[in-house]
Amino acid sequence: MAEKMFYLELGRIPSEDELVARFTVEPSEGLTVEKAANAIAAESSIGTWTEVAAMDGKFREKFRAKVTKIEGAVIEVAYPAILFENGNMPQIFSSVAGNIFGMKDVKNLRLESIRFPPGVVGSFPGPRSGIDGIREKFGVKERPLVGTIVKPKIGLDPEAQSEVLYEAMRNGCDVVKDDENLTSQDFCPFDERLKKCLDKAKKAEDETGEKKGYIPNITAPVETMLRRAELVEKLGGMFAMVDIVTVGWAGLQTVRNASLDLILHGHRAMHAAFTRSKLHGISMEVMARASRLAGIDQLHIGTAVGKMEGSKESVLKCAAALRERSEGSGALRQEWGDVKAAMPIASGGLHPGHIRALVEIFGRDCIFQFGGGIHGHPGGTAAGARAVRLALKAALDGVPLEKAAHDSAELKAVIDKWGN
Amino acid sequence: MAEKMFYLELGRIPSEDELVARFTVEPSEGLTVEKAANAIAAESSIGTWTEVAAMDGKFREKFRAKVTKIEGAVIEVAYPAILFENGNMPQIFSSVAGNIFGMKDVKNLRLESIRFPPGVVGSFPGPRSGIDGIREKFGVKERPLVGTIVKPKIGLDPEAQSEVLYEAMRNGCDVVKDDENLTSQDFCPFDERLKKCLDKAKKAEDETGEKKGYIPNITAPVETMLRRAELVEKLGGMFAMVDIVTVGWAGLQTVRNASLDLILHGHRAMHAAFTRSKLHGISMEVMARASRLAGIDQLHIGTAVGKMEGSKESVLKCAAALRERSEGSGALRQEWGDVKAAMPIASGGLHPGHIRALVEIFGRDCIFQFGGGIHGHPGGTAAGARAVRLALKAALDGVPLEKAAHDSAELKAVIDKWGN
Repeated sequence: MAEKMFYLELGRIPSEDELVARFTVEPSEGLTVEKAANAIAAESSIGTWTEVAAMDGKFREKFRAKVTKIEGAVIEVAYPAILFENGNMPQIFSSVAGNIFGMKDVKNLRLESIRFPPGVVGSFPGPRSGIDGIREKFGVKERPLVGTIVKPKIGLDPEAQSEVLYEAMRNGCDVVKDDENLTSQDFCPFDERLKKCLDKAKKAEDETGEKKGYIPNITAPVETMLRRAELVEKLGGMFAMVDIVTVGWAGLQTVRNASLDLILHGHRAMHAAFTRSKLHGISMEVMARASRLAGIDQLHIGTAVGKMEGSKESVLKCAAALRERSEGSGALRQEWGDVKAAMPIASGGLHPGHIRALVEIFGRDCIFQFGGGIHGHPGGTAAGARAVRLALKAALDGVPLEKAAHDSAELKAVIDKWGN
Repeated sequence: MAEKMFYLELGRIPSEDELVARFTVEPSEGLTVEKAANAIAAESSIGTWTEVAAMDGKFREKFRAKVTKIEGAVIEVAYPAILFENGNMPQIFSSVAGNIFGMKDVKNLRLESIRFPPGVVGSFPGPRSGIDGIREKFGVKERPLVGTIVKPKIGLDPEAQSEVLYEAMRNGCDVVKDDENLTSQDFCPFDERLKKCLDKAKKAEDETGEKKGYIPNITAPVETMLRRAELVEKLGGMFAMVDIVTVGWAGLQTVRNASLDLILHGHRAMHAAFTRSKLHGISMEVMARASRLAGIDQLHIGTAVGKMEGSKESVLKCAAALRERSEGSGALRQEWGDVKAAMPIASGGLHPGHIRALVEIFGRDCIFQFGGGIHGHPGGTAAGARAVRLALKAALDGVPLEKAAHDSAELKAVIDKWGN
């Protein structure tokens, strides 16, 4: 139990300068939501479990967090901006998403949303390229980008990896990426893979007249990530992929702050360890807003239709968090100011038969990625990649997949294997 | 649903060279534990949701993970060491604690334990100082170290922070630390706070004849953390604190790999977002083993008696993971080889009345930290710090606190305020 009810200020509208967090709270037995909310605001700002000296009313007024709203199990807490260090995402999470998850005062606690005030927003760089920059680099103005994750996800040597990449690219993929667990194992060292894949991407560009992007996974301790990212830039690559959760905020920020001319592609492996429960943890929407602020250009946010959990509602919220200039509602409405828009990535269990639904859900400013849905095509990687482009064209032209399949053995094979 | 049941090898004892993970699985409706286990092993190694070309039997044999045990809801998966990059903790987590938490094949999934094989262990530096190094620096051979977190946890300016530190140190605290959300806000810039606190620590050393350690929180993007850590070393400080979860594995490793002569103190703010549920997420034991390997010297692992959740069983497992040369059971038994022992930190809602229980639970190779339990003492910080040392002496001498309180107004006040 925290101190007295110093942290309630119910009914006040948070000011523009406050950081606001929305939580769903399940108090421990015997506690009211009010008491749990008070303890949460205390622990995540200046308080602790017992009263201490040196905390007079003036001090408390300046630094304390305030619970401004309680509606059933949902509470909103407003934090004065003075509590946060400029441009320091780990510090923000240590504050508003730190100790509170382990307090005995709560049985469950979920951070649902976070609204960054303008001063905090302005202290981060945001995406370097963003959607406009990515479209410019690819020369693709209107359609979604499509790509593949090389499969098997791990085990191919650099030569084999680059061959799969080449087959996918010359048959229609804009991007080809490493999977989240491939970094620089002995069977596929990073530098060698990078060189071979960039060479093959160039070859595919020359043959197709389209821009092609290889997305190498640079995930590692930071000194190694930077070395890898610098090599990508030096060799003329466009992308660096970071597993943002297992790398962590500090490493992601440092890669972004290095100001390399690379599109940062964010994979979210491990996120579901804390985003999946609706009762406890942190929502993916929070991760999406924080990732955009920290400077990711593209982020995996789920598919609503593939192999991973995640509702359409969650996917839409995350897409808005990445792309809109102003999104969210009430005290959690986020104004993005000059921060560029980042691009959502739909990936995980997708095949070409999903594309129509993906266009409806995501619109056009996004990337659709197919792993097994390309390499598992009965005709192999090349046929799978062609099927993706054909299915995308059909979806954008409003032609049903069955009809487009009349003229395409690749699409017919998709329907036969995976349905529509 | 993953591919065919290629990933089961039930009954085989994992070899010494395999990395082993133990999970508790709740399959989705209609799926058996066997099928969910197969999907987990596939997704966390080479497989995906559909069969792909290029994956022949020889390839699969070399790279696949194998489910070696299923007992009720508990499964064990053995991963060939070839899947992992040397010295890359983010990559290990992206593999065995990555996408699998979000698979539709499982309703809940918890990574309970992880056993690193000798090749992986040898590729990480482990703690630089470890318990022996810390004891040597402090000249304290047998008793637990005691310390405080400055409270109010945030809001004091550098001068006030250093005054609280000084009062605590000259009255008995070995260490005084910043809290997890204090880094370098405008009201308390890091460099100024560091200088003032190191000065006051020196003064307390001169007055008491004891070694005193200030633990500054360097949590930030990595380029900033390194700059701060270098300044600490340059000014003769002993410690750097990192919020290991919000900073992330990559940043923690880079700070450790920088080979500065600093004791790395790990705060775990945010861990309970994914460690608290017994059904889903990652256990604190996994975090403790990985942190020791990555190179933390000290880690918060709970108290079993204070304000935070966490059972005595969990605390004991984490303490063993940090301190023992060999710990855990069955296929999850961890051999630590030459990796130094790290020191457990008990912190969170503690007061001097808890010390007897803490000594029973943690033994002597640990740090006990008191925030509100020192500064909230009716006599203030100085009296609180004296009470801690008196209570520690009583506990080590086997004297009941009530008896020791006969001769001590500070201890009597502890019992009156917080009980015993």
